[in-house]
Amino acid sequence: MRSAPAAPGDHLSEVDTPALLLDLDAFEANIARLHGEVLPTGVAIRPHGKAHKCPEIARRQVAAGAVGVCAQSLGEAEIFARAGIADVLLSNQIAGADKAARLADVAGATKVAVCVDDPHQVAQLAAATAAAGTTLGVLIEVAMGRRCGVAGVAEALRLADQIGSAPGLELRGLQAYAGSAQHLRTPGERRNAIERARATAEPIRDALGATHVTGAGTGTYPLEVASGLWTEIQPGSYVLMDADYALNVEPPPFRQAIFVQARVISTHPDRVVVDAGHKAVALDSGRPTPPRGLSVFGLSDEHTILLVEEGDPPAYGSVVRLIPGHCDPTVNLHDWIVAVRGDVVEDVWRVEARGA
Amino acid sequence: MRSAPAAPGDHLSEVDTPALLLDLDAFEANIARLHGEVLPTGVAIRPHGKAHKCPEIARRQVAAGAVGVCAQSLGEAEIFARAGIADVLLSNQIAGADKAARLADVAGATKVAVCVDDPHQVAQLAAATAAAGTTLGVLIEVAMGRRCGVAGVAEALRLADQIGSAPGLELRGLQAYAGSAQHLRTPGERRNAIERARATAEPIRDALGATHVTGAGTGTYPLEVASGLWTEIQPGSYVLMDADYALNVEPPPFRQAIFVQARVISTHPDRVVVDAGHKAVALDSGRPTPPRGLSVFGLSDEHTILLVEEGDPPAYGSVVRLIPGHCDPTVNLHDWIVAVRGDVVEDVWRVEARGA
Repeated sequence: MRSAPAAPGDHLSEVDTPALLLDLDAFEANIARLHGEVLPTGVAIRPHGKAHKCPEIARRQVAAGAVGVCAQSLGEAEIFARAGIADVLLSNQIAGADKAARLADVAGATKVAVCVDDPHQVAQLAAATAAAGTTLGVLIEVAMGRRCGVAGVAEALRLADQIGSAPGLELRGLQAYAGSAQHLRTPGERRNAIERARATAEPIRDALGATHVTGAGTGTYPLEVASGLWTEIQPGSYVLMDADYALNVEPPPFRQAIFVQARVISTHPDRVVVDAGHKAVALDSGRPTPPRGLSVFGLSDEHTILLVEEGDPPAYGSVVRLIPGHCDPTVNLHDWIVAVRGDVVEDVWRVEARGA
Repeated sequence: MRSAPAAPGDHLSEVDTPALLLDLDAFEANIARLHGEVLPTGVAIRPHGKAHKCPEIARRQVAAGAVGVCAQSLGEAEIFARAGIADVLLSNQIAGADKAARLADVAGATKVAVCVDDPHQVAQLAAATAAAGTTLGVLIEVAMGRRCGVAGVAEALRLADQIGSAPGLELRGLQAYAGSAQHLRTPGERRNAIERARATAEPIRDALGATHVTGAGTGTYPLEVASGLWTEIQPGSYVLMDADYALNVEPPPFRQAIFVQARVISTHPDRVVVDAGHKAVALDSGRPTPPRGLSVFGLSDEHTILLVEEGDPPAYGSVVRLIPGHCDPTVNLHDWIVAVRGDVVEDVWRVEARGA
């Protein structure tokens, strides 16, 4: 693994590049904004750890009122639990007796729940908890699109019966996460999508007599909070933000808090080349946004070519901040988060669940 | 970091998912094919370590006749040198006195060279080698497109003079790497591109009286080998291969050797969902190729949705192999390479330079 690119007290210009920077003022403002808005409603906040994969950030979210965190993979759940997060929801399905056994082990020391949409999963989790002597919470996931989840009431009732007959499993309610709705551009589209999600999940909740429904991300959470159906939200990106989410609301409610800092390694009359390519900034939601006066001509694995559109070009050796198109997979490229306050490094945090 | 997803002797179906698999038979055939073709010509092979970031693979390439490896970042160069690779070319520019000092340190125990295209770089490398008491090889990079490199003879001569006056720097020749030519689809386009590259580099080589020119990748290396100009090639992808390179030549000269193995975690009448998304397979050169009978409906961070087009859908818990669109950035997402022979795990190798 790469060694840490900075140490507390370093000036920004000394940070080894490429590096993932976290602007602590923006990060803290984002937590204060969302937690301040949602906690008074009584809806619980369970931030998604898939966005940051960083126990230090998870601890700060819990300290600011979150009930725990979500993980999207078994590896993330293991790492957050080991780091002392007391309540972890694996908001995804797992397959296989090996993974079920590992999750049942995690449940020995930490409150853990997991999603299901298939009788095989329930059978494997039941066997694993029986063997480990632990208890796992279970949420039946409702399909909101073409990803995972049960399609209707009958399937959900069959799973609920099966869960009810397993001593080590405890049915906690439903997961209803409208993933594709997060990135719809207009408020009307998002409102319609969450109304459809509510109409899909509500009859299943009622048939099960469930009282708990978890879901909702950064793009739509005010709608779920207002709906009366959801009792818990799972926003991840709000602490970090990215260019894609910034297009959803004008002005964005959250500040851009992560950046990829790169250094100019080659200068030319029309362009500069910096030392961060798509191994340092994910492209699945588009190219990164460069500073004013520059445009992105192209990226390769280790380089971004920036055209000089106006003003003086950045000098050889100077640093440039890129705003990622998508925060989650960009964080997953980095082993370290360099937490900065103004121009000074305040701390350096391991992205412990990177790759997990 | 994630713990190893498998152990020697495991059956493929036991490998923890998602996992990066290396088919050793294909990998060995690819080395035999390229090395067997090029070594008799007298042109040196310096495989690119940016593709695999794995010292174990680098050692096998050197054992099969490679003169050393290329690195694309200082971190990679440090890791390959520490792992015992005796001759490392950092085929890129670096900026800053800190990085120059680190590279000069590496040159204490290993034969190291680096590319330059700017007098600032030469000055920083000269100062760093003077302080460390070491010698660095230097290659002047020739611009082949809009990335790094000098544009012509005058610039190259000025850099050569500056290098010549620095006791710790040794001018070794030129780098001329036609990166964009690697992915041109027709033989004629690639031939024209390498002819243009030759026409750009040759006058600079002659003006400097240089005898060494390094460059060339998996997509074009037979052209550079045949040109009479290049004395060393830098192919990286040939050992691993990907869906993009497989489109260049029909049939492809190299076998597909890496795969992302994923597991079916959710089944539906029309589709299955597997536990590898774009945090496990890079999308910069398109979506991964699924097994026959399935098509990719979409990817999210941790999921790929596969539509069932024909035949029986894969069962819950079964494993599926995806062929990455682009090998280099896909490897960079993984901490481990699971080396398999047939259906059995033979070894598990650290991707030590991942993220470096």
